[in-house]
Amino acid sequence: MTHPIVAELGQMLPEGGLVTDPDRLAPRLLDARKRMQGQALCMALPGSTAEAAAIIARCRAHGVAVVPQGGNTSLVGGATPMRPDSVLLTSDRLNRIRQIDPVGYTATVEAGCILDDIRTAADQAGRLFPLWLGASGSARLGGLIGTNAGGLQVQRYGNTRDLVLGIEAVLPDGQVFNGLRALRKRNAGYDLKQLFIGAEGTLGFVTAATLRLFPAERGEATALVALPDVDAVLALFTAARESVGEVLTAFEMIDRHALALMARHYPVVPQPFAEIPPCSVLIALTGSESDTVLNERLAALLLDHGLEDAALAQDGKQTQALWRLRELIPSAQTKEGPSIKHDLALPISAIADFMAESTALLAARLPAAKPVVFGHVGDGNLHYNLSLPASEDFAAAEALANRLLFDLVAQYGGDISAEHGIGRLRIAAADAWHDPVERALMQQLKQLFDPAGLFNPGVLVADAKAPRTPPTSGD
Amino acid sequence: MTHPIVAELGQMLPEGGLVTDPDRLAPRLLDARKRMQGQALCMALPGSTAEAAAIIARCRAHGVAVVPQGGNTSLVGGATPMRPDSVLLTSDRLNRIRQIDPVGYTATVEAGCILDDIRTAADQAGRLFPLWLGASGSARLGGLIGTNAGGLQVQRYGNTRDLVLGIEAVLPDGQVFNGLRALRKRNAGYDLKQLFIGAEGTLGFVTAATLRLFPAERGEATALVALPDVDAVLALFTAARESVGEVLTAFEMIDRHALALMARHYPVVPQPFAEIPPCSVLIALTGSESDTVLNERLAALLLDHGLEDAALAQDGKQTQALWRLRELIPSAQTKEGPSIKHDLALPISAIADFMAESTALLAARLPAAKPVVFGHVGDGNLHYNLSLPASEDFAAAEALANRLLFDLVAQYGGDISAEHGIGRLRIAAADAWHDPVERALMQQLKQLFDPAGLFNPGVLVADAKAPRTPPTSGD
Repeated sequence: MTHPIVAELGQMLPEGGLVTDPDRLAPRLLDARKRMQGQALCMALPGSTAEAAAIIARCRAHGVAVVPQGGNTSLVGGATPMRPDSVLLTSDRLNRIRQIDPVGYTATVEAGCILDDIRTAADQAGRLFPLWLGASGSARLGGLIGTNAGGLQVQRYGNTRDLVLGIEAVLPDGQVFNGLRALRKRNAGYDLKQLFIGAEGTLGFVTAATLRLFPAERGEATALVALPDVDAVLALFTAARESVGEVLTAFEMIDRHALALMARHYPVVPQPFAEIPPCSVLIALTGSESDTVLNERLAALLLDHGLEDAALAQDGKQTQALWRLRELIPSAQTKEGPSIKHDLALPISAIADFMAESTALLAARLPAAKPVVFGHVGDGNLHYNLSLPASEDFAAAEALANRLLFDLVAQYGGDISAEHGIGRLRIAAADAWHDPVERALMQQLKQLFDPAGLFNPGVLVADAKAPRTPPTSGD
Repeated sequence: MTHPIVAELGQMLPEGGLVTDPDRLAPRLLDARKRMQGQALCMALPGSTAEAAAIIARCRAHGVAVVPQGGNTSLVGGATPMRPDSVLLTSDRLNRIRQIDPVGYTATVEAGCILDDIRTAADQAGRLFPLWLGASGSARLGGLIGTNAGGLQVQRYGNTRDLVLGIEAVLPDGQVFNGLRALRKRNAGYDLKQLFIGAEGTLGFVTAATLRLFPAERGEATALVALPDVDAVLALFTAARESVGEVLTAFEMIDRHALALMARHYPVVPQPFAEIPPCSVLIALTGSESDTVLNERLAALLLDHGLEDAALAQDGKQTQALWRLRELIPSAQTKEGPSIKHDLALPISAIADFMAESTALLAARLPAAKPVVFGHVGDGNLHYNLSLPASEDFAAAEALANRLLFDLVAQYGGDISAEHGIGRLRIAAADAWHDPVERALMQQLKQLFDPAGLFNPGVLVADAKAPRTPPTSGD
């Protein structure tokens, strides 16, 4: 017995607009970290905003859940349908670049466009779309907006929120919110588009956005710098902002354990230091100046700061090699064995103290776990991952690690997620660690937009009516 | 008979916390443009977040309206209480700089701090708070947040929204929303603080914010460039972004009529051109490089672009003189006589066409009005003011000008306010020109936060229950 919504959508949608074949559905029902096996009645693929609105209106009429999905790259299960009566709503066919405006420095793009394709289209118009992250080849714009994606160039260009000027979305009741503006400045009402950014598809289905573009970069300079400790990392960050702030594009910390994992699992990627330093920083300058000028400015920064142990990339190949040292860390950690992943947000000036205290705490309470810490220190965002021997009880270790780290991060004024989001994986943790006034407001907003609770249920916002549960191993 | 809330607040608040003296109230009840005469039972001045919460809870219990006010610099009557049963809630005593964090590049500041004082405090810590506008000496942070203030450096540093990391606010029900985070990146729930930015005090009373700081600027270069038309202005803007994008701080257009008004009313401010050009652009570069380097880069940009008619400031005094030419325009226009003010938002690439079409339209339909256009062209924001002979019927001319310009701005994908806001002055226009889905969502949000409709009633959001009126002379 198939649900009547399936036949109805089949009649309504054109060829290619509906998938029911279990083999084609399967990869879209398993989350990217392979921790959650979802289920759905079917997958609907609207080809236009009007089709998306019609699908959503029908699902609402049937009381069927709608789960938006982009490139299925969520690390927190934010796009995996779990209720059997779900329609998976994907943006695959909403893949048009509607307009590139090189004078206004904007691009209007549909939600199903893959990030690399948006970057390429901007580049062909002599412009830069600066969002750049590990999943650039598969993440789609709708998902990037839903998670307010960050990535590797936030220091210079901001998060996705900072890059979105306008949004078009279908609301849970099937109405179209037309906020597709190309305005750099507007002060004429509540900025409603902000609600859809970082909402993980719980308030509506984003169909298109108008994005900010930037001038194409003419030059770059990249270095990996060896530093004795996290205090030295922060001192260099402060100096870098002062001396080259406007061309400082990336400032990525890599700890000793991360480079050690790279040496073990990716010996082919050259490491510039004779001995692995306690901390390294990958620092990148880009901008309208030439490679030569930027290299001189970077060298002057390091010299003024008394830093001699640094590898400055001499050409594009060396630049790529330095970036590979940073980008392959998650993969090296996967090769090493099980790991507990965290994506912590911290005030930048608290990072050194937090690192010292958390390292001591974990050594005392969870000695089997080895912290491998890297990430966007210039954005106050640490990927604080714990490698665990296969013999350990993963669920118990994860529950303990979460409790220890989330308590500590809260003490330092941080938060449990900087860029990965809450999804399903962290929903109980968010519910437990967040302020009750804020939690209540979130639930009321959710209720306002989606009174039937049919839009990505079980993601981001804990059900107001359900009893509050303490966070368990899944958090 | 005084209202019982007055006595109650008087008992509750310390010395200096309540003002009932009509002479002290008077200047706070008249709006900055002297178009609206307000009234209020009293003015309450909380000295802490807890006091603000207590005041708001009492007002709610009494069913009394609460009108937040900062420096009373609103150009659209956004902070003027009109209902007789209003308590004017001012931030004057919430004036502490709570913390400056030079490593994290943040400042936590109370809502009553004056913008210039925040800029000074940041400067003393070697940091820059880049928000800068005409009312810097009197505007207070709460009002700047409530209107998502823009100003003169948006091109480089963004609007107030881009500068706010965290917000603390008292909700209309007296609860405190504690979103005072110093996080550059956070993806752990709806970004609720966005709702208070640009909300003109209709969703709560902002008591403090954590702001982004930037490195202090080391060098600057400033020029006034003569250009034949608006197309040439946009071509220079495109070239400037490409060649000096990351140090391009301001790009301000001034039309012929604005410079002519300056020559007439401020002959003491030197004008660099032998003959007033059709368009001028004030272009400013600032950053970590020296004056010398920035001047060379600016000169090279103008030379590459074939622009010979340009005045490059040779020292700080000349820089100030160029800025005065821009900053005194509104004052010169006031000296000239009555003027109809507009603060239009446009896609940057539409500005030239919009200027041509609007000029022709006004010449045909409202020939008595002389457009004086200037503003933040790099942000897509034109102050499109119409000087009117004193003999004209101002109200009729304003109503017609608004209708013509708002219709046209809508056709070009723009909006009726870029930075001044809606307030009371534009509320019927916003109601008439905005999308009904967006309007309904705004009303629902207002209802969610302020079900009794007591928070800054009559500002920004049209009452959902009132009949929709066509915009009249007041819009």
